Amino acid sequence: MNIQDSIIFFMEILGTIAFAASGAMVGIRKRMDIFGICVLGVVTAVGGGMTRDVILGKLPSALEKPVYVVVSVITSLAIFVLLYIKHDLLSGRLGTFYDKAMLIMDSVGLGIFTSLGVMSGIDNGYPDNSFLLVFIGMLTGVGGGLMRDMMAGEEPYIFVKHIYACASLVGALGCVEIYREWGRLPAVFIGAFIVMAIRFLAAHYRWNLPHPKSSS
Amino acid sequence: MNIQDSIIFFMEILGTIAFAASGAMVGIRKRMDIFGICVLGVVTAVGGGMTRDVILGKLPSALEKPVYVVVSVITSLAIFVLLYIKHDLLSGRLGTFYDKAMLIMDSVGLGIFTSLGVMSGIDNGYPDNSFLLVFIGMLTGVGGGLMRDMMAGEEPYIFVKHIYACASLVGALGCVEIYREWGRLPAVFIGAFIVMAIRFLAAHYRWNLPHPKSSS
Amino acid sequence: MNIQDSIIFFMEILGTIAFAASGAMVGIRKRMDIFGICVLGVVTAVGGGMTRDVILGKLPSALEKPVYVVVSVITSLAIFVLLYIKHDLLSGRLGTFYDKAMLIMDSVGLGIFTSLGVMSGIDNGYPDNSFLLVFIGMLTGVGGGLMRDMMAGEEPYIFVKHIYACASLVGALGCVEIYREWGRLPAVFIGAFIVMAIRFLAAHYRWNLPHPKSSS
Repeated sequence: MNIQDSIIFFMEILGTIAFAASGAMVGIRKRMDIFGICVLGVVTAVGGGMTRDVILGKLPSALEKPVYVVVSVITSLAIFVLLYIKHDLLSGRLGTFYDKAMLIMDSVGLGIFTSLGVMSGIDNGYPDNSFLLVFIGMLTGVGGGLMRDMMAGEEPYIFVKHIYACASLVGALGCVEIYREWGRLPAVFIGAFIVMAIRFLAAHYRWNLPHPKSSS
Repeated sequence: MNIQDSIIFFMEILGTIAFAASGAMVGIRKRMDIFGICVLGVVTAVGGGMTRDVILGKLPSALEKPVYVVVSVITSLAIFVLLYIKHDLLSGRLGTFYDKAMLIMDSVGLGIFTSLGVMSGIDNGYPDNSFLLVFIGMLTGVGGGLMRDMMAGEEPYIFVKHIYACASLVGALGCVEIYREWGRLPAVFIGAFIVMAIRFLAAHYRWNLPHPKSSS
Repeated sequence: MNIQDSIIFFMEILGTIAFAASGAMVGIRKRMDIFGICVLGVVTAVGGGMTRDVILGKLPSALEKPVYVVVSVITSLAIFVLLYIKHDLLSGRLGTFYDKAMLIMDSVGLGIFTSLGVMSGIDNGYPDNSFLLVFIGMLTGVGGGLMRDMMAGEEPYIFVKHIYACASLVGALGCVEIYREWGRLPAVFIGAFIVMAIRFLAAHYRWNLPHPKSSS
């Protein structure tokens, strides 16, 4: 594995940890047992990538190599132990800790998987179809979180958190453009960074997109 | 593109518009923001066809050609603007407008995609397996609406609206038979027409299938 | 078809009947009409296997051969007729009948499909990748029930019933080991038996896995 592949692999693991943590946190708030929490962590972390691979006609890499599932399970267990010991993190004055950690984990996963989804499209024979690359990048990015929310019976983040799919779209567009100009590594980093930056700014400044007026 | 392909393509676009509109309407009633409304419109319009293509082992045509997503987004934006300006269409005495428009859009999409699903099975190497053709036709027809309802947290139309999957089944059966007798174009038109006719008649005369008695 | 294939086929049909019955029962409790009940029965029975086949890059066998859908529909209709006539089985003192029948049907389906999922992985070119075999076994086992619960708007069994995915995991691990030692038939039977035994014992002794403390 050369340096570039190692860095990409490191990003994959980082995204896996972030999404698994977000899944485990939802599971804990829903009072699932330890196995359910691990299932939700794994689904969130590998769900988007599996959907992408199935659509592109590949055997999902999460099935070929155990590392992604193993990392997801370890992350979920760690989150469980942490919140089992310090269960006041979930409630009261510290309850905002949950919201902040969730925003960070979910945004890191969304950013990294959006970029990696674009790369996967490039590697599987569609380097010139910008539309496909952006679409598959978004799908990889939002897929895991969408499965998490639907399985847990939550209203999907993609509809609740404003600027969610929008951040993924802008990041994927940036990633494709930068790949054409500067190559793979800058594209992955800057694409992921764009998504996270938009999400954090949107959360901080409470950006909203227009939505239908309440009927009176 | 010869005449026949042009007509089939026109039907695809019509079905895409109808399903995208139904998705956008659900999004608006759920008070999603403009981006969430577009996401739901796109998912409803391309979800069934993508599922079908993945099952048949093809790259989804919605990923290859941007036209379906672009048409879905434009439709969703148009619905948003219309209901943003005339938001009384959603409520009060005019609230029945919503139900009627929803019935029409959803039925047109269901009918067209059922027929096109059957054709897709024929074109991908299974012209003689009637069972497969009917199954893949139904799956294509009901898939988009099912994803719409599940993502939006609504009870799926397929269970709520009586005669829904049933209409798709009868239309798919008709489509396969007519294809064998008269060829492609009559099959697509009559198949779609059967589905819509059953749905409209069922809605008008309030047909019901038997269901379990309330236990007392 | 030799004896071994016949026995495997018999197990497939048994699992299909059990899962279809569980789907139909959920549909009946939700007061769906007869067609919705059949749809939910079919989805539960063929959903897990279709997901598995799509991931492994095969045309789903439920699409190729009508037998699985036909058996699912007949089972669903039989359950409907039974509970239509004896609708007191759903309520009152007899209400526990529902819970017990549901536990049995769902566990039989979970056990059989977990084992058959492992075999499918072996037959499709991955006999040496234990991780893949266990993963695809679990996915096949829990997939149908998960679709059933999500479509019906129920909290998924996989999160509600403790030891659910856990039973599937242990059964899949056992199935892979026994296949290596003693071959196919013992693996299918013992794998399925392990899953069912764990589920029944867990239900009887009310086993629980640790879960987060209630915050106070």
